[in-house]
Amino acid sequence: MNDKKYAQLIIKEALAIQKRENAIIWIKANTENLPFARELARMAYEEGAVEVKVTINDEELSRLNMEFMSEERLEHFGKYNLDEAMDYIEDGVSYISITGGNPDLFKGIDSKRITLRQKASGAVMKPSQKYTMNDINSWTVIGYPTKAWAKIVFPKLSEEEAFEKLKEAIFKTVRLDHEDPVKAWEEHLDTLNKRGEVMNDMNLTSLRYKSDKGTDLTIGLPEGHIWVGAESKDAKGYRFLPNLPTEEIFSAPDARKVDGIVYATKPLNLSGNLVEDFWIKFEGGRAVEVGAAKNEELLRDLIARDENACRLGEVALVSVNSPINSSGLIFYNTLFDENASCHLALGAAYPTCVKGGESMSEEELASLGINDSQIHVDFMIGDESLSIVGIDKDGSEHQIFKDGDFVF
Amino acid sequence: MNDKKYAQLIIKEALAIQKRENAIIWIKANTENLPFARELARMAYEEGAVEVKVTINDEELSRLNMEFMSEERLEHFGKYNLDEAMDYIEDGVSYISITGGNPDLFKGIDSKRITLRQKASGAVMKPSQKYTMNDINSWTVIGYPTKAWAKIVFPKLSEEEAFEKLKEAIFKTVRLDHEDPVKAWEEHLDTLNKRGEVMNDMNLTSLRYKSDKGTDLTIGLPEGHIWVGAESKDAKGYRFLPNLPTEEIFSAPDARKVDGIVYATKPLNLSGNLVEDFWIKFEGGRAVEVGAAKNEELLRDLIARDENACRLGEVALVSVNSPINSSGLIFYNTLFDENASCHLALGAAYPTCVKGGESMSEEELASLGINDSQIHVDFMIGDESLSIVGIDKDGSEHQIFKDGDFVF
Repeated sequence: MNDKKYAQLIIKEALAIQKRENAIIWIKANTENLPFARELARMAYEEGAVEVKVTINDEELSRLNMEFMSEERLEHFGKYNLDEAMDYIEDGVSYISITGGNPDLFKGIDSKRITLRQKASGAVMKPSQKYTMNDINSWTVIGYPTKAWAKIVFPKLSEEEAFEKLKEAIFKTVRLDHEDPVKAWEEHLDTLNKRGEVMNDMNLTSLRYKSDKGTDLTIGLPEGHIWVGAESKDAKGYRFLPNLPTEEIFSAPDARKVDGIVYATKPLNLSGNLVEDFWIKFEGGRAVEVGAAKNEELLRDLIARDENACRLGEVALVSVNSPINSSGLIFYNTLFDENASCHLALGAAYPTCVKGGESMSEEELASLGINDSQIHVDFMIGDESLSIVGIDKDGSEHQIFKDGDFVF
Repeated sequence: MNDKKYAQLIIKEALAIQKRENAIIWIKANTENLPFARELARMAYEEGAVEVKVTINDEELSRLNMEFMSEERLEHFGKYNLDEAMDYIEDGVSYISITGGNPDLFKGIDSKRITLRQKASGAVMKPSQKYTMNDINSWTVIGYPTKAWAKIVFPKLSEEEAFEKLKEAIFKTVRLDHEDPVKAWEEHLDTLNKRGEVMNDMNLTSLRYKSDKGTDLTIGLPEGHIWVGAESKDAKGYRFLPNLPTEEIFSAPDARKVDGIVYATKPLNLSGNLVEDFWIKFEGGRAVEVGAAKNEELLRDLIARDENACRLGEVALVSVNSPINSSGLIFYNTLFDENASCHLALGAAYPTCVKGGESMSEEELASLGINDSQIHVDFMIGDESLSIVGIDKDGSEHQIFKDGDFVF
């Protein structure tokens, strides 16, 4: 297990750059991950990329800005940011986002300031969102440790030890501990695809979630919905893996048909603050009440971000026995925690989760209950007690999950 | 001498952020200088800045891009880059550019590729250039060591030793070794101002340069030209220091009236390559012939960058006894080497170097011989043998420089 093998998995398997013509790659990295970003860039060029753009985010500077920038400047987010994204999107860019960073980065900062900034950037960047949401451009989100992050996952270890330990854990989640990681991935993708096929064959109209924690939620599913595994295809027909690791199969809910209450089973890292022990109550699709032991305000701000931020946009099934969950770690990072647990997402749905969705108009999508919003935020709801029952057109019930795992 | 004092000199003296309303700062830094950029950002906020934007350039990635990017992508430089600059310029941004970096960064790369990229970016960014050239926005260029740069200045030392040694040298050039650096700066600025006054009082029409190396050059000076010292004023009336260090007084030449030959006395760092032992021959203002012991091609490409890249845009006087020159070091970095030596610049002139120039149209400036180009590249021509004679309207000769130093 080393950085080079990891880079190979990303460049050659997740994005398969060697198969692409005129590949343009845009890597988004933290300062601390710059050495790995350089490794990716080098390899992308070796595999024939014509351009590798890297944007570097520095957490210390982000924190300084969030603390001290004037409100007026926080709200100022120039349209050139969108123009830059669209310029690359139109030229067929593939994204590599390196997630990882201090989950507590913005601890103690007034959530109003964070929301102000995110609203401003979300509003400007919205038109670029659909290109990844619709898989027009390829994209992959991967993880790489930072010291601050590692210290939160392993608080008792020294920074260096924690970093190495987190790296090892991440490498295991992406199957780098297998002798032939690519083969292991292909086998794993097969398993996920088969689960998706079983779900698709049942052609359900709704799902009913229950858990010991108190979750009692019904989620409607749109006509023509598809359960999707870890593989996607971009507009040019190239296969890509949007997430490394990935353990989920997911679909789009009918955003108008969600009722009941759901309890989160893992903390949610919301832009540098952890929302802990929270629940959301839905009525007619809308989140009408929320509660949290910590940072409830941030959750409230989130669902008020725009008109449909209070509605669901993703329903994902993950076995409680997934290797990530079996590690026993809480990563405090969505990429990892979402793949350890059944989850839902507030905000935009993936149009690719209904048949023909990628070529439907906004109105057509809305008529099916496919949600649209500037946010898409996963939160985890799976645990060992979770039961999910599917109901089909005839009203027949099908057990999907029992004790937190698939029954098939 | 430490980083904090240096940051203070930049924030409180060079840009005087504490005196500005709604100061917006844009820091341009290398990855390696990020800790110092953070220090500057923190201090700028402490002094009341409303936003500090930092853009980080990574030399390793720049080198990778310059080596491997396709020619088509090298030529692709989106207009959003200009929009971003203009957005900040219009909001009154002040720039801090941290220069420093490997002078050999692009060694061995085909100069055509470098030129391709620079032409593309220069063409797009041209409209933003005048805001600094005309001192509409405040700007300051300062230096900070990197290891690769330090190793070239001190090739016999270890990277760490070289870094510390270069830092010490840089700190001395900006008078941080004085007990009260700010007071030392004010005295120094006085000296430069007085030299400028003497030159302005003579109201010369041309300068004649001669040196043992073979320099024999006449440079016409425009009607109404001004000799400027180290202080500038931006459009809002705030004083700023464009360069730290600075030892020069400078003016604009008449770009149509330059004749003869000039020999460089220091190597020129041209976008990561050193042009060494070069000369330029001028006729009627145009560089008509060049020669160099190393990287002549880059020099040729430079003067062909656009129509007026082959004409002069700056004439600057620096005593050979300046503290930077007395250090005996070659910095292989324009900011430092230009302040160790009389120099000229190819390309754009500063409109502020003629009376009322900042409000003249392009045509009015051109009619005075004020050069316009997308480039502005200083090169050093001073040494211990340099003599400069000024000729006034009546044809009287005035000795300005003898044996490389001012006679007054």
